[in-house]
Amino acid sequence: MALRTRLTQRFKIEHPIISAPMGFVAGGRLAAAVTSAGGLGLIGAGYGDAAWLRREFEAAGNARVGCGFITWSLARQPELLDLALAHAPAALMLSFGDPGPFAAKIKRAGVPLVCQVQTLAHARQAAAAGADVIVAEGGEAGGHGGTRATLTLTPEVADHLAVAAPDCMLLAAGGIADGRGLAAALLLGADGVLIGSRLLASVEALAPAGFVAAMIAADGDATIQTKVIDRVRGYDWPPGFSGRALKTRFVADWHGREDALRDPATKSAQAERYWQAFLAGDAEETGVFAGEAVGLIHDAPSASRIIAKIVTQAEDLLSGASNFIA
Amino acid sequence: MALRTRLTQRFKIEHPIISAPMGFVAGGRLAAAVTSAGGLGLIGAGYGDAAWLRREFEAAGNARVGCGFITWSLARQPELLDLALAHAPAALMLSFGDPGPFAAKIKRAGVPLVCQVQTLAHARQAAAAGADVIVAEGGEAGGHGGTRATLTLTPEVADHLAVAAPDCMLLAAGGIADGRGLAAALLLGADGVLIGSRLLASVEALAPAGFVAAMIAADGDATIQTKVIDRVRGYDWPPGFSGRALKTRFVADWHGREDALRDPATKSAQAERYWQAFLAGDAEETGVFAGEAVGLIHDAPSASRIIAKIVTQAEDLLSGASNFIA
Repeated sequence: MALRTRLTQRFKIEHPIISAPMGFVAGGRLAAAVTSAGGLGLIGAGYGDAAWLRREFEAAGNARVGCGFITWSLARQPELLDLALAHAPAALMLSFGDPGPFAAKIKRAGVPLVCQVQTLAHARQAAAAGADVIVAEGGEAGGHGGTRATLTLTPEVADHLAVAAPDCMLLAAGGIADGRGLAAALLLGADGVLIGSRLLASVEALAPAGFVAAMIAADGDATIQTKVIDRVRGYDWPPGFSGRALKTRFVADWHGREDALRDPATKSAQAERYWQAFLAGDAEETGVFAGEAVGLIHDAPSASRIIAKIVTQAEDLLSGASNFIA
Repeated sequence: MALRTRLTQRFKIEHPIISAPMGFVAGGRLAAAVTSAGGLGLIGAGYGDAAWLRREFEAAGNARVGCGFITWSLARQPELLDLALAHAPAALMLSFGDPGPFAAKIKRAGVPLVCQVQTLAHARQAAAAGADVIVAEGGEAGGHGGTRATLTLTPEVADHLAVAAPDCMLLAAGGIADGRGLAAALLLGADGVLIGSRLLASVEALAPAGFVAAMIAADGDATIQTKVIDRVRGYDWPPGFSGRALKTRFVADWHGREDALRDPATKSAQAERYWQAFLAGDAEETGVFAGEAVGLIHDAPSASRIIAKIVTQAEDLLSGASNFIA
């Protein structure tokens, strides 16, 4: 058996699964493993570091992978787009900002433009910019996101695209970590899914073992959308976005009193605490971005096993769905 | 065709749909219409008003309906439970608080206990209290809720129940307004769905025409979880819950500066503004609880038409789901 959607057909991939370009942690090895497993892997360019990006494209070897940027950050160093395009990526994904200024160059390069959106308004903007794929990302996702939920955003964007851009494909993102989520997303009107957290807890992701262990130990109640991690790192995100992370001791200490981190001495001390623990893989004393789907994640096998398991479960559910009919 | 799940079998209903006991607006007429349409209707006892509750049970006539309470509010006037049980309800639903103190009496009366939960921790508590049905309510729901999303909470609670209480049934709630949502919920592991907002915009709900018109005009980006409405009404909700409502002018005026409503004169003036507009059906100047699913709601027909349409769409999707298999 295999799942077939517009996404698998147009991207000529086996499974309707793209991996989320998680900054810092979705490197070339994970992206290549996802592609090799029959999905499409994306490298997470994050806030943008040319050396890191070059290294990770290299780590992907000859695998067909794409790359994803934080749009407002890319706007500050637009040359990184040329760097990515020079690697002939299989797809270029933009999230968190107006894709308009970059769309023409990406499309001119013949690279599929994937726009991740957090609201219907964003989806309208992305469709108008000529997106080939729109990712409807609910706030249950790990890392940065908005407040809309995947369950309502996906069908609402599907309805918009059906009228405004029927050729534009749609992925659901946020909260999808198993075959139930994939099968549900397809019935909600998506052509596939973008998967983050589930692939973060994998052999190939660039995540410290301590972070992965904390994710596996956590249930879905244990995450929170917070601005603490951005504040301590000095990233000035636009309004409307915050980062979903585990409620670690570090996050719990500062969530709700982020303004205290404006004091330079406090911020500097906490930044040291954050980065020291981050580099040591000490989850409790730092920030660990992860989605609500951690409650569905209980191991950290290879990306290939993860994808095979998701697909098999989705196939079983979809092929048996008519059993609900009396 | 018809959908068959444990819910339809055990409750002997035609469709796996229960209507949300929305306080003030889900009266006997709506509950009866939902039951008559093949689902199971619940009267929304809300904060508790004996006269209102008696009247609405009467309005339901001979229809088999149930009733839902706000648990922490019921604890302050527990005699309302006796009133409800005296009407031999088809189900008794408790939301927002520990069901433990009421569970024994409800079960002794032979009435199915439905517990709505907003977290996995709540679900553990409800299962331990002997719930016959657990409703996993995501924060995309209209009215009061938590921050978990339906898409992750539903399968995570399903996994818990499979081990801890395999006979306990599971409904998904929050964000479900059409057949896509119902079909997705079943594949996520639910036995059915609880539907609120979609049935609020109906002929039979006790909602002013102005509120329904505002819901129909709104897209899913136009709602927000806020404490403003509770603050101005003087309801002291426990931590962890807020109310999702349309971002009306009234809500926008006060969201983010709720503390200013602690000033007695300000609160009194704003309460007058709120209630005057509420009674006049002037949506912009009051609070209109509604879920993110408003973006999927474009009309206000009868409950019977709403349910028929949801079920038909879900049946089509489920019977065609195997088409995704290559």
